[in-house]
Amino acid sequence: MSESHAIPGYAYGNVSQTTPLSLEELDLLKQTVLFSPEDERFLHLAGEVLGDQTEAILDVWYGYVGSHPHLLHYFSLQGQPDGHYLSAVRKRFGQWIIDTCTRPYDTAWLAYQQEIALRHHTTKKNLTDDARAEPIIHLRYILAFIVPLTLTIKDFLAAKGHNAETVAGMHAAWFKAVTLTAVLWSYPYVHTNEF
Amino acid sequence: MSESHAIPGYAYGNVSQTTPLSLEELDLLKQTVLFSPEDERFLHLAGEVLGDQTEAILDVWYGYVGSHPHLLHYFSLQGQPDGHYLSAVRKRFGQWIIDTCTRPYDTAWLAYQQEIALRHHTTKKNLTDDARAEPIIHLRYILAFIVPLTLTIKDFLAAKGHNAETVAGMHAAWFKAVTLTAVLWSYPYVHTNEF
Repeated sequence: MSESHAIPGYAYGNVSQTTPLSLEELDLLKQTVLFSPEDERFLHLAGEVLGDQTEAILDVWYGYVGSHPHLLHYFSLQGQPDGHYLSAVRKRFGQWIIDTCTRPYDTAWLAYQQEIALRHHTTKKNLTDDARAEPIIHLRYILAFIVPLTLTIKDFLAAKGHNAETVAGMHAAWFKAVTLTAVLWSYPYVHTNEF
Repeated sequence: MSESHAIPGYAYGNVSQTTPLSLEELDLLKQTVLFSPEDERFLHLAGEVLGDQTEAILDVWYGYVGSHPHLLHYFSLQGQPDGHYLSAVRKRFGQWIIDTCTRPYDTAWLAYQQEIALRHHTTKKNLTDDARAEPIIHLRYILAFIVPLTLTIKDFLAAKGHNAETVAGMHAAWFKAVTLTAVLWSYPYVHTNEF
């Protein structure tokens, strides 16, 4: 992972956030999204398939954000997008694709999801990149992102010639992983004891 | 909809909940989940396809809840499932499948999603059915349900002989609708101004 250390603000393994769930509770959540050892294998394969396509994926996602003023809003202050912030987040977003596919979902993974969650929330928004932008990303859009992040990945999963069944397996595993992640990212927004 | 009035606690069109979003904000949320007029047409078709399969779908969903103690928990008090509650919810859940496919996403729809949200939350949990059960469904499971509700519907969408492209279209539309709904159901759990 030596190249990862070159990504500013990428603190995987170096955050000590209290995680919202224990590993036992995470396991129940994984059961709820039907996440099995087979999904883990499909995700690892997806990591191989997507590894050299992250820039193209980010082009799609950034095109989508950039073409929707209500989303670009969260990278902006008083209507002025912060280019440095957009570009700093983009590097970490690319690494997130790979991490989602290849990292074990353990305590370090949970802690970094919590760190990302806090960076969306007022708690830590804008701090990492010294950004000039809105003080929070509203939760409804974090959750709604499950859809574009899931639907737009399919073509990239299919781009390396795997058969339809394997692509569908990778796609379902990705969908489960993205939903799991979005659930964890909701934690700072939710009333105590209601998460 | 005359038969719908026979479902105890089904109050579509008869609730006056303040909705968390205006129609303009709902439109932005629909854009975020890539929900288009084409999805609306696919959802209507899905409503026709699923209309006589709701009991079979509910068998799958209830089998899934019943086989996971951490989910059955929310229909139970001190480990004792409330059969009357399970059965009352089941009837409304079947109607929800149809409503999700066929109702216009207007103010009445928003108001009823808010009513359902409050019935999951401490605000109104157990009141409608006089249930003996846990006082809240934790948000993480409401959100996690996006996955099983989406993945398990595919076979039912394919059961009436539509071609693969049409089934995929109905499936994507259903995924968007379920995610949209889950987002709205999160509202009572979220800090003021963070939704």
